[in-house]
This record gives sequence, structure tokens and C-alpha cells, in this order.
Amino acid sequence: MINVEKAKEIILNSTQNFGVEEVPFLSSVGRIVKEDIIADRDFPPFNRVSMDGIAIDFKSFQNGQRTFVIEGIQPAGSLQITLQNKENCIEVMTGGVLPNNCNTVIRYEDVEINNGFARIITDNVRNTQNIHPKGKDKNQGDVLICQNKCISAAEIGVLATVGKSMVRVAKQPKVMIISTGDELVAVNQRPKAHQIRRSNVFTLVSLLERLQIPSETTHITDDKPILKSKIEGFLNEYDVLLFSGAVSKGKFDFLPEVFEELGVTKLFHKITQRPGKPFFYGKTETCNVFGFPGNPISTFVNCLVYFYPWYYNSVGLRVEEETAILTDNVIFKPNLSYFLQVKLSDKFGHLLATPITGNGSGDLASLVNADAFIVLPKEQNEFKKGENYPVIRYR
Amino acid sequence: MINVEKAKEIILNSTQNFGVEEVPFLSSVGRIVKEDIIADRDFPPFNRVSMDGIAIDFKSFQNGQRTFVIEGIQPAGSLQITLQNKENCIEVMTGGVLPNNCNTVIRYEDVEINNGFARIITDNVRNTQNIHPKGKDKNQGDVLICQNKCISAAEIGVLATVGKSMVRVAKQPKVMIISTGDELVAVNQRPKAHQIRRSNVFTLVSLLERLQIPSETTHITDDKPILKSKIEGFLNEYDVLLFSGAVSKGKFDFLPEVFEELGVTKLFHKITQRPGKPFFYGKTETCNVFGFPGNPISTFVNCLVYFYPWYYNSVGLRVEEETAILTDNVIFKPNLSYFLQVKLSDKFGHLLATPITGNGSGDLASLVNADAFIVLPKEQNEFKKGENYPVIRYR
Repeated sequence: MINVEKAKEIILNSTQNFGVEEVPFLSSVGRIVKEDIIADRDFPPFNRVSMDGIAIDFKSFQNGQRTFVIEGIQPAGSLQITLQNKENCIEVMTGGVLPNNCNTVIRYEDVEINNGFARIITDNVRNTQNIHPKGKDKNQGDVLICQNKCISAAEIGVLATVGKSMVRVAKQPKVMIISTGDELVAVNQRPKAHQIRRSNVFTLVSLLERLQIPSETTHITDDKPILKSKIEGFLNEYDVLLFSGAVSKGKFDFLPEVFEELGVTKLFHKITQRPGKPFFYGKTETCNVFGFPGNPISTFVNCLVYFYPWYYNSVGLRVEEETAILTDNVIFKPNLSYFLQVKLSDKFGHLLATPITGNGSGDLASLVNADAFIVLPKEQNEFKKGENYPVIRYR
Repeated sequence: MINVEKAKEIILNSTQNFGVEEVPFLSSVGRIVKEDIIADRDFPPFNRVSMDGIAIDFKSFQNGQRTFVIEGIQPAGSLQITLQNKENCIEVMTGGVLPNNCNTVIRYEDVEINNGFARIITDNVRNTQNIHPKGKDKNQGDVLICQNKCISAAEIGVLATVGKSMVRVAKQPKVMIISTGDELVAVNQRPKAHQIRRSNVFTLVSLLERLQIPSETTHITDDKPILKSKIEGFLNEYDVLLFSGAVSKGKFDFLPEVFEELGVTKLFHKITQRPGKPFFYGKTETCNVFGFPGNPISTFVNCLVYFYPWYYNSVGLRVEEETAILTDNVIFKPNLSYFLQVKLSDKFGHLLATPITGNGSGDLASLVNADAFIVLPKEQNEFKKGENYPVIRYR
């Protein structure tokens, strides 16, 4: 039996690099970029007009000129034109190139246009105004997105802008999720009195989907030879096996034995925590084996507390710890780390965590009313309203 | 020109119900459930053993008995068996049914088993311990998930448990995203000096994907008759049109005219905010038209500030406002609401917002370094470090 900190340390020291793949940029949301994304040109790539109006040479305005012959129009998306007579003006559109020989844009709101002439009706004109100068945001060669960033809608826009129609991202591990337990029946079956439906594997599928990891699921009956032969195949075929159940002390909890017989190196089994104590973690040279306890909340917590950081570390993503403030006193006597379900809320920029009382690790429905787990350390028994502790969100 | 509050009010008053559809439960993550999910039986459905060990009748223990003949085994997933002689015991496994005539479970750690006998080696045994009683978590008929909840991994487990292999969720609107602007070329094209690549439509696709809304994209050239005929078709075919560009004062900003000619009722055009001022919102009887300004950050902000709440309201989801605390003084003189990019961080449960300086609404790359927008009200010009304001996260 080891403590949570030690378990995490072991997990983080045994992460695995799954390599890199190229994917279409629009499919890369939620993936971890594995190349620096570079500006392929200056941004803006030209002196960009940032207001609809007229472009002039500021010197004319400075000399007192207010009325200008309109020489032409420079729409967005047209080749740059040139102001031939520096005492004239050109109509310009937002997003277009600033015409040659112009350096100042006056917006339509401050101009009267009549019969081919534009009259400026304000005295408040600054040299170079309403122009977004070439290279002001970024220069060609600048790094726009550093590698190891998780791609969101903001990054999608940048990838499009620099023409990265394909982008290199961390490859996802190949995952099999396995339920055990002869009491389990399929979701679309009607369970007999002593049976329940499979649910943990689907919870795990969803928790992995949040990380954009596709997964497969299967069920193996509580029969040691069958377990052994199936798991042997999976160990060769997958990067990660997630088990739910059969890791505790029961007569049919065959997994730890089977793992040993199949050459899975046990890195730990059992952690001083509640829920989720009998968690098993081990590995072969090519496969990582997470044996989650069969109780729904135990599986849920351990996936968030151990699999998630293991994955983040494997793909190179740095995730900041978040903390929240308890709204109620909590007493927890056992000498265990306590992952307590909480409902999060905001009050004046303070993140408040209100404990949600469940009925122990079997009470899956209690997760519906909470948003996160607050992590209460083993060394304390009393946790006071107003104190703050780490939280792990799941929605 | 109206203010942000009025614009939001108009948006929220013109939401639309898109109906309900049934989807496989594993595909329902991120969708809004449109039925109460009910417990189809008690949870647990039987008196559930919650520790591996032996089950006894507590009376025997109370009478001083410590050694018990093992009458049999009750594995998880087996029909309930009966303790024939109340002075004997039955080995029981976590998740299994408590045998008939038993009421107390002693875990293996507190028992010595030898030769068909189990000896209890602790005096610390409570009546009914290590049993999760039938119906303790929920009773048959209880509501486990109320309708209008957004489905996450936690709800997936509950849906599986109660056998909801298909679940009723809010139908998503059918959305077309349209870019305009002759300066735009495709992502995989090399732009000429006066051109840039399309990016806003893809940002919008990603922002909608966050809401599980699929969308299509297209580009229309800045030609009024072409715009008009294409948009006419889209108005009939889609629930929502999102435009990027062509809503400002430029000579080729045809959209407001085209909308009018096609019978789109303008609900507002232009909001006292930065960025994103020239935002247009209108509707026909069947279609909602969001005309976002063409600048990347304007489009991004307006999608978050207006489309998101419009969607939430349409599908019946209530989303709590979140606030954060400024880490720096901000001065913003214009009489406009200011959506300022911020990087969020946690300090002792306080959500801190650090302003990220961009170069105005064209500087898409600046979004990469931020996580959210902080909403600074129009009525103030100075915003002090330590004050808290609403924030809108985008990652």
C-alpha cells in the first residue's frame, strides 16, 4: 500500500511516447501539437486598412487640405493600387491593402462624399491612423503556437491563417477497456435480480473521449484461463489496457495473479485513498495496465487522478493544478486521502467547492450532482470551511 | 447602435426550439438531455456486499460465537443463496447479493480461514456492516438526471446503469457558416501579396464543435447578385446562418442590404462594444442570421458572447456566469463595452485574470496566449487590479 503522492510519482515516471502523426487541421482540436507553428509571412502581410473610408497622404491634410478628388477604389482582395496625385484620395475597405503613396485612413463617418469629391469633416486626424501596419502583430518566422499546446478553436484559426492544412500532433495510445464481473449484463438487457448493467466501461470511454482518445471495449467472464488468454492477446496489441473490477481481495479477483503470470511488472497495487483503494498499476515493455476497482466512483476517480496525468505527461501537455475553497467543514477520520465530490460555483472570482454527499463508492448517480473532486490530504482529519485544496473537474 | 445588455436581451428573446431526437447513449456526450432519467429499479437493486469476506447472522456474533462453518460461496453475479444454519457463514464477494439469513459482512482482513472454518479475529463488528442496502442510493422511480442537463461522462454511466441505450436529446440546429471577402483564399493555397487565407469559418466550425453542433462552410464572392441568390437558398435550408465579414460600412459590405431585400428582419446592427461592433443579428420565420464582423477576434468574441447564449437558451441549458479577478489595472477610454483577452490562473481558489495585450481585432495569434475574455463594462474607464468581472472562457 502506497500513498497518493508516491503512486502519482510512479505513474508520471512511467509515461510513454506514442510518436507523432499528421492530421487535417480541422480534426486537430483537443490534440497536442508537436511542431512549432511559424508565421509564413508577416501579419498583417501588408499595411492593412482597418476602417472603411478614404486613404490620403497625411501631408495634404497637414497643409490644411480638406477636400480631395477621389481617384479610385481599393477593395479588399485587390492588388495594391497607387495614388497618382498625392493631393487626391482613394476609397479603401477594411481588410484591403493600403494604396501606394497613402499613409492615413479617414473613416466614412468623418467624410462627406459628393460628386467624386470627399470632404473631411473632422479636424481630429492623426498621421497613419486606421492602418494596421505590415508585420505589427507578427513577423515572418515568429512562433505563433509553441509545440505541446492543446489545440482549441483559437489555434484552429491560426493554423488556417498560416496554411497548415495538415498539422503534426501527438499520436494517441491504442486503448482497450475491459470489464470483468459475472454480475454484469449489457445496457440493452434487463438484468435479473442479482445482476446489474455494465456502466464503468462506458464512463471510461467518455472520459477518454474528453482527451480525444478513441477506445474499444470488451467484457471477459470471471474465469481465470479465459481471462489469461484474452489479456495475453490484448497486451501484445494495445498500448493501454484499462480494467474495471477484479483487483480486490475477492475469490474471483483473478487479475493481479493473471497479470503476474503474463509478465506484467506490478508497479503498485493499493493506494491509501478513498474511494479507489485497490487500484493496480503495472506494465510490460509495450503496454500500460491500469486495473481500476469495480466500484463506479472508484473507477471514475482513478481515471481522473492517475490515467489523465499519465496521458498528459505522455503527450507532453502541462496542465496547471486548480484549487477551490471549501464551503463547509468536512471531517474524515480514516488515514486515507479523500477524493470528495463537490459542486463548484463562482463567487466574486472565488471558486467555491460545496461537498455533495453520496452513499459511498457505489453511488454513481451522486456524480450527476457534482462537477469535481476535491482532494483532501491523508495527514488531516478536519478540513475547515474557507480552506482551499486541489480540485479535479470532470465537466 | 445598442448596448451589449440590450443586444443580449434581444438574442435571448429570439431563441428557437429545434425539437428533440433520440441518439445512442454513448453518442450523447455534450448534448442536452430532454427527458428525466428515472431509476428503473432500486439502487443498489439488492442488499449488496461491499467487501470481500464472510457473511453471518449478527446474532451469532453477539452471542459470542467467533468460529463459523463455511456453508458456501456467494459470488457476484450469482442468484441469491440462503444460509441454512444461522450459526454458519457464507463467503461473499464485493458486488454480490447478500445471502438470505445474513445481515453482516466481515472482511477477509479480519478473518482467518482454515479447513472449512472461518474465525473472526476482531471484536470490532457492527450489525449490518459492509452492506450497501437495497435502495439506499436511489429508489425505483427516482429521477437520476433531470432534463436539460448537459451530458458528461458521469451521466453516461447513469444512462448505462438504467438501460437507456437510446436517449432523447435536444436536436441541434442546422448551421451554414459563410465567409465573404475577395481577399480570402483557401487554407492550402499560397496567398498573393494582397490576399490572406480563410480562417474565421474554421474558427467558427471549432467553436460550434465545442457545442457538438456540426456545421457546413462555404465562401461567397463579394458580388451582390451572387450573394443574394445563394443566401436566399440558405435561408430556406438552414436554421442558422453565421456570416463572417461584409457587415460594416465598406462599399462591398452588401450583407445588410441583401438581408433586407430577402426579408430578413433586422433585430439589431452594431453594438457599443470592442471588438465586434458592427455585428448584425436578424431572422426570418425559420432562420437566424448572425452577421459577424470579418476581423478574426470580432468573429470569435461575438460567437462566444451572442451565439453561445442564444444556443444555450434554445436548447434549455442554464449556464452559470463565471467571474475572475483582474491582476493589473486596465484603462479603456472609449464609451464601449470592452472584451479583453486574459490568461486565467488559480491562486488559493481565486480565479485570476491577467490581461494579454494584442494588437486589436485583427491579431488572431494573440488568442493563442489567452484563455478567456474578461467583460469590462461600458460605464467605466478604469478597472482596478483586484476588482472582479465576468469572464468567458474559450478553452
